[in-house]
Amino acid sequence: MARIEDRLAELGLSLPAPLAAPPGVELPFELVRVSGGHAYISGHIAMDGSTVLFQGKVGADVSLEQAHEAARATGLSMLTALKQALGDLDRVARWVKALGLVNCAPGFNETPAVINGFTNLIIDLWGAERGGHARSAIGVAELPFDAPVEIEAIVEVG
Amino acid sequence: MARIEDRLAELGLSLPAPLAAPPGVELPFELVRVSGGHAYISGHIAMDGSTVLFQGKVGADVSLEQAHEAARATGLSMLTALKQALGDLDRVARWVKALGLVNCAPGFNETPAVINGFTNLIIDLWGAERGGHARSAIGVAELPFDAPVEIEAIVEVG
Amino acid sequence: MARIEDRLAELGLSLPAPLAAPPGVELPFELVRVSGGHAYISGHIAMDGSTVLFQGKVGADVSLEQAHEAARATGLSMLTALKQALGDLDRVARWVKALGLVNCAPGFNETPAVINGFTNLIIDLWGAERGGHARSAIGVAELPFDAPVEIEAIVEVG
Repeated sequence: MARIEDRLAELGLSLPAPLAAPPGVELPFELVRVSGGHAYISGHIAMDGSTVLFQGKVGADVSLEQAHEAARATGLSMLTALKQALGDLDRVARWVKALGLVNCAPGFNETPAVINGFTNLIIDLWGAERGGHARSAIGVAELPFDAPVEIEAIVEVG
Repeated sequence: MARIEDRLAELGLSLPAPLAAPPGVELPFELVRVSGGHAYISGHIAMDGSTVLFQGKVGADVSLEQAHEAARATGLSMLTALKQALGDLDRVARWVKALGLVNCAPGFNETPAVINGFTNLIIDLWGAERGGHARSAIGVAELPFDAPVEIEAIVEVG
Repeated sequence: MARIEDRLAELGLSLPAPLAAPPGVELPFELVRVSGGHAYISGHIAMDGSTVLFQGKVGADVSLEQAHEAARATGLSMLTALKQALGDLDRVARWVKALGLVNCAPGFNETPAVINGFTNLIIDLWGAERGGHARSAIGVAELPFDAPVEIEAIVEVG
């Protein structure tokens, strides 16, 4: 029971506090929306409650290594939202698709290496078969709160 | 009957004319594609027929308030396409997911506040339960016709 | 039998070699993930094996015409991945949705004309009814390997 949370503990990881909108910010959308056997996870940045954990453009203010860590932390924020929405992370039967967005400084295009921080976390937790997913990793002009990484995803709910 | 259109009228809103490609532009894709109980709505900008309603980069040419209005108008253009594809907006049982794209001037990252113009419209029309949706709101480098906002979405069809 | 591959041959087109990660690059995700009757195709760029076929920003290093060709070649790379995943391209019953990403030089926004290279290829191969799809075509800041075009898509699997 609680296999994914046990696995998180084995990896020495813990989930951040649920997202709370920072002062003056309205977030009227749902963090997770379930439809037709899939859960659609809104674009997340790495946060702990209302605290933004990483800021800046990758390749300038933020290194590739830091951005990789931000992508991993973004995954953990997504898991907090999934747990809130589904009640239990073990209800995620399979991962399907992720869109990874990197806030790139001009000329930085190692976006796959950044988003690997997320992908490797998910595969570490669910295994290659259930955790594998289709993915895009692209460089965008700006992200909310000047976050270096934002990720949205689709999972199968069991 | 025609509950959503009645609600639009109550809010003092009307749908724009269906999208017509501006001269010299080929748009060979479908505005709405239905598959597996979902309608996938192509990326829309705010248009009335072949007229582009807003242009420019948000944070430079276009203010946050104008961009919020553009996001709302983009939602209305999406509803025109949905009505054409489904015959009746009341066939939209639930909203699922939106991807909001903001044509950002360098340094502008209040993308969630912009896309709230769309999200609040949908919730005003369908209510929180049916209108709620997962969402990402990101800053991109360029959008077609220099539009400040483009939005694509997925809805459940009843 | 093998109708789509016959049609490719009629058009004088052939599929590139399957994607192999260039040296030093880790791509731990799946190129195609099947879930709930749909195949989710990861973001692809135009490649032949581990060779990147086009590089540079559209509107500066790469012309609109070259980018249109890159979008078409990107579609062929996606078909190679689909064939590997499904065993036969004829298993693609209908196209559903594509997200086209263009690596834009500042001021270039004819992104729909670029992604038409992909859309027209798919409609040439599957016909308007089965090949039609919802679509967005947007300008992003950076793409992996400095590719001019990246495309992800969803198809119905028969």
